[in-house]
Amino acid sequence: MSMQTGRRVGVAFVGMGGAVATTAIAGIEMIKSGSNRLDGLPLAGLSVQGMTDYKDLVFGGWDLNGDDLASAATGHGVLTKQDIENGAQVLKGITPWPAVGSAKFCKNIEGGNRIVAKDHRETVSIIAKDLKRFREESNLDEVVVVNLASTERWPDLTAAVLNSTDAFEKGLDTDDESISPAMLYAYAAIKSGVPYANFTPSVAADVPALLNLAKELGVPVAGKDGKTGQTMMKTVLAPALKARALHVDGWFSTNILGNRDGLALNDPSSLQSKINTKGTVLDSILGYPVEDHLVHIHYYRPRGDDKEAWDNIDVTGFMGQRMQIKVNFLCKDSILAAPLVIEIARVLDLAKQRGDSGAQEQLSTFFKAPMVKNGAGPVHDFGKQQKMLLDWLGVN
Amino acid sequence: MSMQTGRRVGVAFVGMGGAVATTAIAGIEMIKSGSNRLDGLPLAGLSVQGMTDYKDLVFGGWDLNGDDLASAATGHGVLTKQDIENGAQVLKGITPWPAVGSAKFCKNIEGGNRIVAKDHRETVSIIAKDLKRFREESNLDEVVVVNLASTERWPDLTAAVLNSTDAFEKGLDTDDESISPAMLYAYAAIKSGVPYANFTPSVAADVPALLNLAKELGVPVAGKDGKTGQTMMKTVLAPALKARALHVDGWFSTNILGNRDGLALNDPSSLQSKINTKGTVLDSILGYPVEDHLVHIHYYRPRGDDKEAWDNIDVTGFMGQRMQIKVNFLCKDSILAAPLVIEIARVLDLAKQRGDSGAQEQLSTFFKAPMVKNGAGPVHDFGKQQKMLLDWLGVN
Amino acid sequence: MSMQTGRRVGVAFVGMGGAVATTAIAGIEMIKSGSNRLDGLPLAGLSVQGMTDYKDLVFGGWDLNGDDLASAATGHGVLTKQDIENGAQVLKGITPWPAVGSAKFCKNIEGGNRIVAKDHRETVSIIAKDLKRFREESNLDEVVVVNLASTERWPDLTAAVLNSTDAFEKGLDTDDESISPAMLYAYAAIKSGVPYANFTPSVAADVPALLNLAKELGVPVAGKDGKTGQTMMKTVLAPALKARALHVDGWFSTNILGNRDGLALNDPSSLQSKINTKGTVLDSILGYPVEDHLVHIHYYRPRGDDKEAWDNIDVTGFMGQRMQIKVNFLCKDSILAAPLVIEIARVLDLAKQRGDSGAQEQLSTFFKAPMVKNGAGPVHDFGKQQKMLLDWLGVN
Amino acid sequence: MSMQTGRRVGVAFVGMGGAVATTAIAGIEMIKSGSNRLDGLPLAGLSVQGMTDYKDLVFGGWDLNGDDLASAATGHGVLTKQDIENGAQVLKGITPWPAVGSAKFCKNIEGGNRIVAKDHRETVSIIAKDLKRFREESNLDEVVVVNLASTERWPDLTAAVLNSTDAFEKGLDTDDESISPAMLYAYAAIKSGVPYANFTPSVAADVPALLNLAKELGVPVAGKDGKTGQTMMKTVLAPALKARALHVDGWFSTNILGNRDGLALNDPSSLQSKINTKGTVLDSILGYPVEDHLVHIHYYRPRGDDKEAWDNIDVTGFMGQRMQIKVNFLCKDSILAAPLVIEIARVLDLAKQRGDSGAQEQLSTFFKAPMVKNGAGPVHDFGKQQKMLLDWLGVN
Repeated sequence: MSMQTGRRVGVAFVGMGGAVATTAIAGIEMIKSGSNRLDGLPLAGLSVQGMTDYKDLVFGGWDLNGDDLASAATGHGVLTKQDIENGAQVLKGITPWPAVGSAKFCKNIEGGNRIVAKDHRETVSIIAKDLKRFREESNLDEVVVVNLASTERWPDLTAAVLNSTDAFEKGLDTDDESISPAMLYAYAAIKSGVPYANFTPSVAADVPALLNLAKELGVPVAGKDGKTGQTMMKTVLAPALKARALHVDGWFSTNILGNRDGLALNDPSSLQSKINTKGTVLDSILGYPVEDHLVHIHYYRPRGDDKEAWDNIDVTGFMGQRMQIKVNFLCKDSILAAPLVIEIARVLDLAKQRGDSGAQEQLSTFFKAPMVKNGAGPVHDFGKQQKMLLDWLGVN
Repeated sequence: MSMQTGRRVGVAFVGMGGAVATTAIAGIEMIKSGSNRLDGLPLAGLSVQGMTDYKDLVFGGWDLNGDDLASAATGHGVLTKQDIENGAQVLKGITPWPAVGSAKFCKNIEGGNRIVAKDHRETVSIIAKDLKRFREESNLDEVVVVNLASTERWPDLTAAVLNSTDAFEKGLDTDDESISPAMLYAYAAIKSGVPYANFTPSVAADVPALLNLAKELGVPVAGKDGKTGQTMMKTVLAPALKARALHVDGWFSTNILGNRDGLALNDPSSLQSKINTKGTVLDSILGYPVEDHLVHIHYYRPRGDDKEAWDNIDVTGFMGQRMQIKVNFLCKDSILAAPLVIEIARVLDLAKQRGDSGAQEQLSTFFKAPMVKNGAGPVHDFGKQQKMLLDWLGVN
Repeated sequence: MSMQTGRRVGVAFVGMGGAVATTAIAGIEMIKSGSNRLDGLPLAGLSVQGMTDYKDLVFGGWDLNGDDLASAATGHGVLTKQDIENGAQVLKGITPWPAVGSAKFCKNIEGGNRIVAKDHRETVSIIAKDLKRFREESNLDEVVVVNLASTERWPDLTAAVLNSTDAFEKGLDTDDESISPAMLYAYAAIKSGVPYANFTPSVAADVPALLNLAKELGVPVAGKDGKTGQTMMKTVLAPALKARALHVDGWFSTNILGNRDGLALNDPSSLQSKINTKGTVLDSILGYPVEDHLVHIHYYRPRGDDKEAWDNIDVTGFMGQRMQIKVNFLCKDSILAAPLVIEIARVLDLAKQRGDSGAQEQLSTFFKAPMVKNGAGPVHDFGKQQKMLLDWLGVN
Repeated sequence: MSMQTGRRVGVAFVGMGGAVATTAIAGIEMIKSGSNRLDGLPLAGLSVQGMTDYKDLVFGGWDLNGDDLASAATGHGVLTKQDIENGAQVLKGITPWPAVGSAKFCKNIEGGNRIVAKDHRETVSIIAKDLKRFREESNLDEVVVVNLASTERWPDLTAAVLNSTDAFEKGLDTDDESISPAMLYAYAAIKSGVPYANFTPSVAADVPALLNLAKELGVPVAGKDGKTGQTMMKTVLAPALKARALHVDGWFSTNILGNRDGLALNDPSSLQSKINTKGTVLDSILGYPVEDHLVHIHYYRPRGDDKEAWDNIDVTGFMGQRMQIKVNFLCKDSILAAPLVIEIARVLDLAKQRGDSGAQEQLSTFFKAPMVKNGAGPVHDFGKQQKMLLDWLGVN
């Protein structure tokens, strides 16, 4: 376990009532009270100077659903009844701040706990005030924003407004339609000097306008799209297939999941954002385009918050002979995601302390489409990503 | 493809008529004739100064079965009829040299093509002459011995004869029962200055007596137990589970295979050798003992030379919640093994050129129980092994 | 094996150059020549009075692709090179008759070997002449037509023209757009007194207009959509789940296949026909609607003519506890389908001899959406279907 | 649900503290109290004259472990904490009667709640008294004994004492070693006119001595070895493979389970009893010996009371082409078994009412090795067994 620094770090979640956020919060609160172990927390075994302790994390955040977190968590079905009872006192006491919602960017998910603002400018001002109030009221040394909201549709990345800081500022003034809710959160955080991570497939901070702003203002950012189940496995297996020169003829990936995330993906435009971030991983690792790489995600209610992936991989080896690998991963989406979110927040806080700004590539292992500092493509090989992280932390 | 150096390297297989050797030989001969691609050859894409080209490999070896290689290959059912026809001219022309056999060390497999010798000393002398003749008749720059024979039973590793060079020499004189056929080949090779690799689970050169001898005489050696299917996958997946702090509660591995290898493993003492080399991999990578790690290998004829592995992995993640990963690998044993054997031979020849002697750790990626230079435990993490190899080759 | 009656039965395939037809023809020709066993032929072990012997079958048929069957079969990749060589003499000598094609009913598949006719009437007249010529030239006791052509889009089943024989006749005169190519073949066969089977998901003879005509004219018909892989398995498993009172909460079925059939299903309207015939099976057997029953079919080229199904079944048992069954079927579409087609032809010929007309329910076991004589729903339970067939044959 | 007859039937379990018995008892008690549905109870949907209602069942039984059932159930980990709390009042109030144990017949499982008796005769007399007391104190219309104890080793079936009623009687007098504890329970039940079912793989009543006695005394008996998971699936799939003439080249079955049952199977002699009952099912259904039929059962603690089966089936179809089916069944042993045990008791009571004595073949569907009335082999085909049961019940 990392050393106890006493450094208080606030984590403000966009989508605080969701399955991942409530699981993360409940889990950390249970660690504070001694009823949860450190399983699943990737950096739990390391001793890194300056990194805040799990027990010094404090939580806040926004959600369109204004229910207290105990109610929200009960609905997600991730935590056991026992877990919720154990953490009830804390969870019941937390209610999300009003959030930004836009049916234009995400159709399926709605809720009534909305920021009332006449335009983009007023919205970002309210978000910034939320952050300031959180920092002051909770007596925090630092705040980190982590986006866990439902996936937004893919924007037009060539829009001028997304490609320079100036144009973006003007876009805020003119209520430009290309600016999504996730971008408003990202902008408000960066302007407030608050590190920002995007765990969703939404574009959010991954546009030149916001990346440049982050660099200018010395704010670390990271993203995008948490790498938990099938894609993680893909980035673990593909490097080995490449090392053994087994040519990947096809990779068929199907997923079934029954949570709110899955429901949102029933909206084809949100699904496309997801497929975008999943797609290039494989070709990038292998060094050639896999001609039959299919990825499907299906909303299947019996699975609940559990998520099941079935992958079939066809490879050609020596003498042109063909083999197959099939992987069936019965995982739990939020259980895998929640501890990653916690570690991302801890590392972003450390990056800020170290003066690192802009895209934090050392966090690549936690993302399907890692944001990178310069034009070079991201590293997807899981082993190499892990080495990058441990090297940066200084513990390898 | 590596540069054509013109350096002729002979590969002498112990167990030349077996499925792996015949596949390796046929595959390389077909590369020479242009009818096979480089799929499955891990180092095919690299350009390494001094490493011999696939086309400059020449094959010889011993086998208890004296059939020509075309007949032997037909029996194994690995190569297609078409392949054997294509390579028939070459394969028909190759007949294995008489081999050493001992029912004490390997019960199930027998054959009549045996070295006639009155004792250990005469046996090693005949093996050494085989190597000398092979080098001269084929006009070779170097020879490498690779052991592909059936698995021997596990010897008593505490026997004095295996623990010092002197004792071993005396053991040869007294026909000591602790010295197995695989050790006789290893000794003869090392004494002849010929690099030796052990692709089988047998102990062979992995005893102090022979390792010291190799170091003294400047001979590179490598082993043991080729890592092709299930164990390879294990060393690919386990580091990722560790990186994500997913605690492995159990790992159930079962294998079905129908080739001569499987039949030999029906002898419980040979099976034990195999299980020994498979067993420690997991605990070593994870850093804790997996309490329920079961490995089973079954002789199942419908699978023929194909090999199928089914793994079930139980992990505990955040909040103590449990998940499962199941991997079904429909692989072809000899098709995976043959190209590794080729690369091991090429790297051992390069090591000899570079003056590296004793255990060649950079070859760890190809072995279930890598031999190491000093007392430290071997590296099992597939990604780290791959990095070691590429670093040694100077191509990373 | 059934008794040799000497009764010569001609089988005329719609889609004679396809993978199923060429496999069926090659297999029977190889049985004639003694180089194929009776594996996979469901009725091979039975002795049924009057049923024609495999050796007395004669083949003809239509295809938009005019290539000889040896060329066609080579393209499908189902038969081995050796098989095609063995059967080459026969297969090379068979060339499909010109066929009916309509881009309106099936988009993806085209070919130049087309019937030249100015309208529906002339088309059916040409088909009828083909059948007459086939019977005479091959000296046949009976002819059976089996539709194996690519799936057509689902027609408007409420169209008047499909609901009475008179309206259909008028529709032929007016070149009605609701009449598909498969219906033209069915009509021509029935009018010629020739039994007709529809092994595709297309509607074909399964409309009142044609069913009534078949009954009137004493012609047996059967269909539709051959039950080979995943759906067969579904009708095998579901009755057992019902017998054990395990409630099916969800059934997720995905398929990957790489043959021409898969390509055709890339056209969403053809896919819909397939999904229609697959969909109701489960609910019908279980007696309640499965709320999450998903069926997906994907075109995935590495699989070639092989077809792979992965099913995940979620059930609730005693005490409300949940369990899962996963089935991975690595099958070969045409290898499973071809012998069923043969048996269907043999049984239809026998039905004609026995004077049975209209829908032949005893053939239900071979179809995903069995045609039935009266308004009652079809039997889908595999075991009950098998009993129906054996009872009808008189061998149970 | 069956009609409420008011007929009170007592079920006396041998092994009452085990996972299956406690699950059965808790489940029925929860049905009585309205907190459990009828899922998983195969006959719940039927209306059969004379069959007792679930709510009229009363439970008793023996166990070497004398803990109350709430404690016992907690240890098994089958029921949720919530379930046990709901049923606590009843379960806490039930304590097993002292039981017969013999280390000679079952090594691994022991406990201190033992019948104190000097010999076989006194033992059966105590068991008979237990049954009498149970009937009187609970005011029962009928009692049924169901054996759920740990598997015993396979006895020498040729022993004279097991082959005639007279010899058995003498064996009781002489404390014959061939008579196992399960046989003592069976004898005592039959002599008391109490129907007896053997849900374990132990031989118990399936010897001529006891079968004849049951027939003589008009007592129905049934067994043996409950068919819940993998074997059930085998008897569901095999008939379909036979119907399609797909030749089974091999069937590899492996099981992992972590409950007390699995632990007992670690004793090779108990395992052999299990393998015996599992083995013949397949060949019997297919009509030919499957040459590579392997069945393995492994004790693997992470699975707890859940049981996982992985089956790989190799078949040959038309044209000699090979296909594979793989089935992964993630089931819960006691959850599947408990409702079968309940139904067996209800049917045996009904058989007694109807005057049926000896082996009750209509219960075949619930057993891996069904006991049969005469010399003919048992029916294993799941569909046919189901039909036999429904026909006997008069509801088909």
